[in-house]
Amino acid sequence: MHHRTETLLSQLTLEEKASLCSGADFWHTQAIDRVGIPSVMMSDGPHGLRKQPTGPGDDHLGLLDSVPATCFPTAAGLASSWDPELLERVGVALGEEALAEDVAFLLGPGTNIKRSPLCGRNFEYLSEDPLLSATLAAAYIRGVQSQGVGASLKHFAANNQEHRRMSVDARIDERTLREIYLASFEKAVIEAQPWTVMCAYNRVNGEYCSEHPRLLTDILRNEWGFRGFVVSDWMAVNDRVAGLRAGLELEMPATNGERDRQIVAAVESGELDEAVLDQAVVRLLEGILHAHEARRPDATHDAEAHHQLAREVARDSMVLLANDGVLPLASDRHVAVIGEFAERPRYQGGGSSHVNATRVDTPLAALQATGDQVDYARGFAIDQDHSDQALIEAATDTARRAEVAVLFLGLPERHESEGYDRTHLNLPENQLALLAAVTAVQPNTVVVLANGAPVAMPWASEVSAILEGYLGGQAVGSAIADLLFGHADPAGRLAETFPERLEHTPCYTAFPGEGDTAYYSEGLFVGYRHYDSVGIAPLFPFGHGLSYTRFEYDGLELSHERLTSADRLTVSVAVTNTGQRPGREVVQLYLHDGTETVIMPEQALKAFCKISLAPGESRRVELELARRDFAHYDVALAQWRVPGGRFEVRVGASSRDIRLAHSLEVEGDPQPLPAIHRNTLIGDLAPFPAAMALIKAHLAPIADEVPLLAGMQGERADDASEMMNAMWRYLPLRALVAASGGLLTEAGLETLIAELKAL
Amino acid sequence: MHHRTETLLSQLTLEEKASLCSGADFWHTQAIDRVGIPSVMMSDGPHGLRKQPTGPGDDHLGLLDSVPATCFPTAAGLASSWDPELLERVGVALGEEALAEDVAFLLGPGTNIKRSPLCGRNFEYLSEDPLLSATLAAAYIRGVQSQGVGASLKHFAANNQEHRRMSVDARIDERTLREIYLASFEKAVIEAQPWTVMCAYNRVNGEYCSEHPRLLTDILRNEWGFRGFVVSDWMAVNDRVAGLRAGLELEMPATNGERDRQIVAAVESGELDEAVLDQAVVRLLEGILHAHEARRPDATHDAEAHHQLAREVARDSMVLLANDGVLPLASDRHVAVIGEFAERPRYQGGGSSHVNATRVDTPLAALQATGDQVDYARGFAIDQDHSDQALIEAATDTARRAEVAVLFLGLPERHESEGYDRTHLNLPENQLALLAAVTAVQPNTVVVLANGAPVAMPWASEVSAILEGYLGGQAVGSAIADLLFGHADPAGRLAETFPERLEHTPCYTAFPGEGDTAYYSEGLFVGYRHYDSVGIAPLFPFGHGLSYTRFEYDGLELSHERLTSADRLTVSVAVTNTGQRPGREVVQLYLHDGTETVIMPEQALKAFCKISLAPGESRRVELELARRDFAHYDVALAQWRVPGGRFEVRVGASSRDIRLAHSLEVEGDPQPLPAIHRNTLIGDLAPFPAAMALIKAHLAPIADEVPLLAGMQGERADDASEMMNAMWRYLPLRALVAASGGLLTEAGLETLIAELKAL
Repeated sequence: MHHRTETLLSQLTLEEKASLCSGADFWHTQAIDRVGIPSVMMSDGPHGLRKQPTGPGDDHLGLLDSVPATCFPTAAGLASSWDPELLERVGVALGEEALAEDVAFLLGPGTNIKRSPLCGRNFEYLSEDPLLSATLAAAYIRGVQSQGVGASLKHFAANNQEHRRMSVDARIDERTLREIYLASFEKAVIEAQPWTVMCAYNRVNGEYCSEHPRLLTDILRNEWGFRGFVVSDWMAVNDRVAGLRAGLELEMPATNGERDRQIVAAVESGELDEAVLDQAVVRLLEGILHAHEARRPDATHDAEAHHQLAREVARDSMVLLANDGVLPLASDRHVAVIGEFAERPRYQGGGSSHVNATRVDTPLAALQATGDQVDYARGFAIDQDHSDQALIEAATDTARRAEVAVLFLGLPERHESEGYDRTHLNLPENQLALLAAVTAVQPNTVVVLANGAPVAMPWASEVSAILEGYLGGQAVGSAIADLLFGHADPAGRLAETFPERLEHTPCYTAFPGEGDTAYYSEGLFVGYRHYDSVGIAPLFPFGHGLSYTRFEYDGLELSHERLTSADRLTVSVAVTNTGQRPGREVVQLYLHDGTETVIMPEQALKAFCKISLAPGESRRVELELARRDFAHYDVALAQWRVPGGRFEVRVGASSRDIRLAHSLEVEGDPQPLPAIHRNTLIGDLAPFPAAMALIKAHLAPIADEVPLLAGMQGERADDASEMMNAMWRYLPLRALVAASGGLLTEAGLETLIAELKAL
Repeated sequence: MHHRTETLLSQLTLEEKASLCSGADFWHTQAIDRVGIPSVMMSDGPHGLRKQPTGPGDDHLGLLDSVPATCFPTAAGLASSWDPELLERVGVALGEEALAEDVAFLLGPGTNIKRSPLCGRNFEYLSEDPLLSATLAAAYIRGVQSQGVGASLKHFAANNQEHRRMSVDARIDERTLREIYLASFEKAVIEAQPWTVMCAYNRVNGEYCSEHPRLLTDILRNEWGFRGFVVSDWMAVNDRVAGLRAGLELEMPATNGERDRQIVAAVESGELDEAVLDQAVVRLLEGILHAHEARRPDATHDAEAHHQLAREVARDSMVLLANDGVLPLASDRHVAVIGEFAERPRYQGGGSSHVNATRVDTPLAALQATGDQVDYARGFAIDQDHSDQALIEAATDTARRAEVAVLFLGLPERHESEGYDRTHLNLPENQLALLAAVTAVQPNTVVVLANGAPVAMPWASEVSAILEGYLGGQAVGSAIADLLFGHADPAGRLAETFPERLEHTPCYTAFPGEGDTAYYSEGLFVGYRHYDSVGIAPLFPFGHGLSYTRFEYDGLELSHERLTSADRLTVSVAVTNTGQRPGREVVQLYLHDGTETVIMPEQALKAFCKISLAPGESRRVELELARRDFAHYDVALAQWRVPGGRFEVRVGASSRDIRLAHSLEVEGDPQPLPAIHRNTLIGDLAPFPAAMALIKAHLAPIADEVPLLAGMQGERADDASEMMNAMWRYLPLRALVAASGGLLTEAGLETLIAELKAL
């Protein structure tokens, strides 16, 4: 491939090279027929192909209807499966559909972290946790690309809100950026090598992602080894030439040749080194040619099989949040199905990910097909928020007559969409009124939710069961019927925390920022990292999800009680299905860093595994931790570092349902001498005997009066010396001049500093 | 004065001028006998004079014993009085003692905000709220300076932790800096003109406070009009020449002439303009000469009267946190006094504020003098944390035999001191064990606390009453006896929130930072601003404190329903003592900004007033709000701005005990056109018809398709147009090139921008 692109490059004029760096239209790359460079197509679609017509009828924003395709559950649902193998199968199916439609690149998956549940696009994102998010994204990418179709990992990076998304500056401290927001991409890039990465609209720490050399080149390419090309989010480009220089190869959509002229002018004026353009063109050609060669004009896909996969995925993704035993329903129960979502399900989200589904299973039809006695009442109108008393009365009548009421509630699309964020977590008023009326007459009420992100549930304790359906894709109805009637075990687990109140969410006081500045002031404390650290009980914790059977954990074993820098840790635990039904459990491993070296959340997910167990079956699960799992990003040294000390391995069924824990000692990375300057603290030098000896020598006559210097550090003496000790510990070298009463001169201080530097 | 300093200045050599810029020793300024410049003394002591001997026996850190002086309650207690008049009287007394000891400058008050209850020096600071803190500091300064003694407002600024205090960099966003951390100084400087301000050890946003031109000159002098001189905290100077240039006049303590040489060298090399040095010397001379002339060699003070003042202050400062009716005690009750703090009270804090008290009233002696039947058991040893079973058993025996147990608990000095921070909020283990044992045998248990900052009280519901004594000064014992036996009404109210758990505190995840960086990531959400905004119930809220009588509020009246930019708002409310005893109430006014213009805490204290009411007495209290009270600091415009819209005035007895509320409409400051550039958002221009007309003209053929341009903004249409609307609202001007499908060219965009700028 490389030779061919080199040859092609040499045949291109400057203008032709520039023209390759942006689209031919809204969806296609530029062809150069003269030398045989083809045009390839890109299409939206993390959870289904959205191949759009292009041309004169275009809406300039790419929002028109697309060709029919299978609509899978959106990412929020997919992630709740906690099942990489399933995500990979979805990727394969999407790849097949793209191939059949001659689409070369599918614009997904989206792995932005769910920083706030208010973000309008959360339904398209996977998780609040970077490990879960990146692991699932990698599986999805592998699936898509196995078909010869490129995935586009997006939106790189820190695109965590829709509010002012094209201008907002995400101000994120380096550790948080590395450990949360970039980590959600890192593993996916390294393990799955997406053919493209899509840069985000927003700025990160002052610079647009579309012209961010640190993100696009230093980190993405040089650190992570990304080998594809970077494509802009549609209209994300601010300064095209700066973007090229930073590592943005392809601007989308077309710009009527405006950008070509800017690039050409920049090269001609010497502002842009032509080698930069050449490198971009080589990367683009490699990607385009690779995709073009993978075309299969005769490719088709099996729409029925994909529909069945969508049903399986939906079943494995929905999360049974609460159940007092009313579920599963026996098929002969008299069921009142209530809520317009039952006949007009909301099964996907609004915006660029909107799929023209091949068919849709409505919950009402599926329940009627499964249950013996199913009545229906509309209950409320999706298209409005205010209550309709007649609808409510009809619904309560229906509910009263039945043995169980199943309420289909959720967020109407206008409440939640790409493009803007929510401002509250509430269900519309008419649904709340309906809920209150139905629970007043029917003690067995099950709520099934359709929503892309958490809603508040002040009513949670008043209902018998809650099934979180997310946006369940086109087989939503049959999947719900499968679960409610117990034909399948609920296997979804929350990939995000459900807060009790909006005010409890980590970035409540900071989201969505002020003007164009969004301080990510909660830092590392995103999602469960926040709730578990600050002692706020969530409504439903990260990792939570009920089954119709029960799982017990025992026999936690660690391969090492003391982990050296050469070791990997293997953790094993026995899980037993002690209930009466087959089921699937997600075994979750959280790590607690007890070393107190840096600011650390209470715990973080480091491994997980989904297993199927027959009733009575027991299995030993093995989970592996690498050294990186114990590390934090050391900002001063610009590297991942493992602190020495105690860690605790915790295994359980959610972040708040830890069943077993075991601690171990970890050997830390060697500690370098701190940077030496006038303001280096004496206490920071205390672990280094040679440094302390030098200081003592300079302060010889009074060294014995200084506890820290005299070697008393750590000993608990009387109150006054406790304070004196602290004073010396936090004293910078430069203050020794005054603190020594002139014994150390400024000249002596300079000598001391020079000597310390020479260590 | 000015003429005299000018003359003096002209007589000084460069070396002499340089020598004036640092101390002669640990506590004195430099004299220049040749021209008659005297040396004056400075002494520590926010709550009592700490005049130290200087000379050969010096400890180089200034921690030795000082001359006897009255020890008042520390600032944490003083502030709980919510009584500026009382603070002023304390200031007068301190001034008298300083004058009698020939001390020219008293190093206080400390108005740093209590960002975390863990800060070891919180006992020396006033409040978590800048209004309360600055108001009380101003009163204190007025008192001290009325005696011809200079106060030193400290530690400027953002010195909110002891951990790495000499090197830590407080990273604070501009609004938070202005509205919280600087606001705590601003009003005190403007209203009371302290003769000196002391710069802090730490850095703020990268620069040492001792060499921070923005803080020391731009804001302190130019914005606030400070006319005194700035003195360094002891050993806070990093780069002396940079400090001089930034506005630090005096370095303390002496540096053996090292700094003089640096200053001289800098002037001689041209690195430092001699005019900068001259200006510093003029400011120093004015302060020193002013203080010197105010000396009264014959001054004395009345130690007995000051002791009685200390008793009154302590009584007015202690906060009755809880009381099920057990208090006040009848004098004939059989009382068991338990806890070593009863005989060895902790009545002040450790470090530079430590006073050599003229006498100390112990609680045990005072209670024995007041009550008819008072037994005592030591219960625990202050000097250790682990339980002594024999002491506990003796204590439970004593408690069992009595009608009421009064437990004296608190933090030993080693747990809380200048120099280091706490790492938890717990009382020592031996005290908790004692508490559990005593409450098990005695249902009427009263806890009296000695501590400089909040402790956790998981036991709060198990005791009958809790009196927060803070560090009550030398009359601590008699004040406690006065309150417990009801000879005085508890008149203290919390100047800080008591959290239920450390994890609930606003900066829990960020304090004390990592290495030398402390991100103030909680931003404006400090103290009650946090608890009231994020829906976490505190253990005891800001402003809380019980009385032995009851107060009712009614008749809230506002002078305006609509406030124009020319108005001040007068709020009045009637308060009635409906109980059986005389008492004092602190009427608190909180303001809620409902305009949603910028990020805002739920409410903020804007006015308060302490009143005395006889049983049955009613009084109408008037509180005034100025325009600034409605403002936030607009970072982009670098000015205080009032947003237009609804505000709510709330009046009550604590931040969580709002009794009455009333809303009003406030006329905002005129809104300027946003800055115009390629990334100005179309939605930000929507309020400006002329700007929208220009954009429309450039997009004429498609303008009607764009809801925002067509004037549809705000109308709720169907779901898709909701999203389309948001897309246009958040679209930057530069994206119009792509979004218009090439209708607007890059050249056209430049024209449009130029036209918009010309508006």
